Amino acid sequence: MTVQANGPAGAGERDAFGRRIIELAARLAQWSETPDGLTCTYLTPAHRAAAADLRELMLAAGMTVEIDGVGNVVGRYAAADAAAKTLIVGSHYDTVLNAGSYDGRLGILAGIVAVEELNRSGRRLPFNLDVIGFAEEEGVRFSAHYIGSSAIAGSFDMRVLQRRDAGGQSVADVIHKAGFDPEAIPSLARRPQDLLGYVEVHIEQGPVLLQEGLPLGIVTSIAGTVRYSVTITGQVGHAGTVPMALRRDAAAAAAEIVLFVERRCAAAPTLVGTVGRLSVPGGAINVIPGRCEMSLDIRAADDATRDAAAADVLAEIGDIAGRRKVTIDVKDIQRGPAAPCSPALQEKFTAALQRAGIRPRHLPSGAGHDAVSFSGVTDIGMLFVRCGNGGISHSPLETITAADADVAVRVLLDVLLNFEAGP
Amino acid sequence: MTVQANGPAGAGERDAFGRRIIELAARLAQWSETPDGLTCTYLTPAHRAAAADLRELMLAAGMTVEIDGVGNVVGRYAAADAAAKTLIVGSHYDTVLNAGSYDGRLGILAGIVAVEELNRSGRRLPFNLDVIGFAEEEGVRFSAHYIGSSAIAGSFDMRVLQRRDAGGQSVADVIHKAGFDPEAIPSLARRPQDLLGYVEVHIEQGPVLLQEGLPLGIVTSIAGTVRYSVTITGQVGHAGTVPMALRRDAAAAAAEIVLFVERRCAAAPTLVGTVGRLSVPGGAINVIPGRCEMSLDIRAADDATRDAAAADVLAEIGDIAGRRKVTIDVKDIQRGPAAPCSPALQEKFTAALQRAGIRPRHLPSGAGHDAVSFSGVTDIGMLFVRCGNGGISHSPLETITAADADVAVRVLLDVLLNFEAGP
Repeated sequence: MTVQANGPAGAGERDAFGRRIIELAARLAQWSETPDGLTCTYLTPAHRAAAADLRELMLAAGMTVEIDGVGNVVGRYAAADAAAKTLIVGSHYDTVLNAGSYDGRLGILAGIVAVEELNRSGRRLPFNLDVIGFAEEEGVRFSAHYIGSSAIAGSFDMRVLQRRDAGGQSVADVIHKAGFDPEAIPSLARRPQDLLGYVEVHIEQGPVLLQEGLPLGIVTSIAGTVRYSVTITGQVGHAGTVPMALRRDAAAAAAEIVLFVERRCAAAPTLVGTVGRLSVPGGAINVIPGRCEMSLDIRAADDATRDAAAADVLAEIGDIAGRRKVTIDVKDIQRGPAAPCSPALQEKFTAALQRAGIRPRHLPSGAGHDAVSFSGVTDIGMLFVRCGNGGISHSPLETITAADADVAVRVLLDVLLNFEAGP
Repeated sequence: MTVQANGPAGAGERDAFGRRIIELAARLAQWSETPDGLTCTYLTPAHRAAAADLRELMLAAGMTVEIDGVGNVVGRYAAADAAAKTLIVGSHYDTVLNAGSYDGRLGILAGIVAVEELNRSGRRLPFNLDVIGFAEEEGVRFSAHYIGSSAIAGSFDMRVLQRRDAGGQSVADVIHKAGFDPEAIPSLARRPQDLLGYVEVHIEQGPVLLQEGLPLGIVTSIAGTVRYSVTITGQVGHAGTVPMALRRDAAAAAAEIVLFVERRCAAAPTLVGTVGRLSVPGGAINVIPGRCEMSLDIRAADDATRDAAAADVLAEIGDIAGRRKVTIDVKDIQRGPAAPCSPALQEKFTAALQRAGIRPRHLPSGAGHDAVSFSGVTDIGMLFVRCGNGGISHSPLETITAADADVAVRVLLDVLLNFEAGP
């Protein structure tokens, strides 16, 4: 079936769901640690205020709401049958520093606005719909990602409780101060057999849909990331006195690596490789760099593509070290497997997009999302919404249109209403 | 004539002059701002102590000595004829941070040890020999180079008096506190017509002589340097979500520049090019660099070679900017002409080296030296001494052998004793 926009208070007007999303995102953005811009990190006063505000919105939308023991805001639009399974629609409400208003929040608000419409039109679903605002995904305050979703997914790492922020407070401290019990976190885990699946609507944070003129995209897989920290040790020398042929310049070796990563990672469609940190510590204009430090981040929609690229990069690094007579230390600092999205959920999205007259564009997610926490626990599915301004995210320049947000809510509603009927 | 080693107190022993140099360099190195290592910057207590020590050495060697109004230690081994012209043998006694013991000091000590020998053997020269320890060459404390030699050469820039150190004291302040009168600096200038020339012995600070197995080399020219500050502005993006083909990565553009500089500056023998500073400000492992900052230093023994390379590098930077759709701002921050060494002085060194049985190797100086201050004022000549440890300087690892220092003193003595006889 096709969903008609006929919600309350002008929901019949053009882009009414989308304008509601944009209004609510602006409302949530008022809760910030900084007077200008938006910064809302885990369990700060701004973050607690945002949680309280989300709770209000969910209650008003007709859900029962609980703020759980790690700060997740869990709204339930309950099925008539108390024994029904649960579909989770969620994303995170914490932000990076100086963030945009849609990263994370769009996915929570899409769920809330969809429930506002279901509730207004008096429709119940044959399953519990849990709309969850996860408390922590970005990892800003404690360098720990997915605190919220991993607790619900049952994979919370209790060692994270000992991580400390820049002020010396631990995760356990701030959870305590918020009135929760860190020891009770394992009890937040859902049982896989109770779940129907996990659906996340998220801003693309890249330019693909924008370039192709499409409002939405269906995520095929969330890329697994391998990350390395690379330190090159060459030989310091006077910039004026060491002939080019006798140099062992650490920065020149780094430059070769940067360009090889760029070239190699252009060789497969979903593959990306980035040197985000690059520096000559204590570099001086008249000194040949004796040391250069860099980071390396390689991702692809599937682990084989990513690992083949990483292997080639590591081999090339070895060649560069030998050829340039420098030492290159490569430290493996992160390795996460790709999280494939459920084919069944992708089919549901495809059918709903087709019903909405939108060409179904499948694309991988290079960024990690809360959905990763549910990979292997239940079916995961993600819908991307076109990102304006060239695809910029993690920035106040991040933007979406009301029209795109509107179609995202309609497609989500369509999927929810047709969930058990198959694609 | 050939000089025999027959100085005082064991000067007849093997490498006696050289061992004396090494002993005196160690003695001077005790005056340091730091408990470990050697740091001796302009007009600090350590620097004043080193000056006092140099004065003692010069007095004991048979010179009259004055510490002049900028802190130069000026020893004179006077000619019998009061109207005689003056040959300056000098270098600097200030150091970089955590320095070696020979950079600068070797040239002063070679002059002192030569005078010790002349005085011991009762020989006067037909000209005044001024051995000068210049107070400041490295530019560490006030980012002003050649304070000492420019005062004597008559090119001291009085605006330098207003430069301040990290503690807020100006050059004028510290000169005042040392008991000198900044306003009197112009009076320190020598008249060109009174000078016979300027000779500087200096550690090579590079690996050329070491690689060729030669103790000494004759400097042909002191490279002129062009320096640029380069800022690349691309587009920040999420490392996972922006396909390679859509990126405008500032660090990748920088990497291309680094490798072009390296390749282009390998194309001519005396040409060198260095990117010493390189950084992605605020870079993060998961963010495509939107900005990269780098320095560029290009030198050659002649200005035409250097300028041709700089023009090619700037053209390539323009191409890279266009190809990668990034903005590259290049700021010209320094441009100094090459200072050619006097052919007549090079001939004197050549003859003396041949008399000592050493193949005369001519090479440019990529580093700047006090001799630059005297370019255009009087004939300048420089003798390089082999640098051990792969050619490392500006480091505690900087080293020379007693044998090499010994032959340097012998060649200097030979040049002095034969100065007016022609090569």
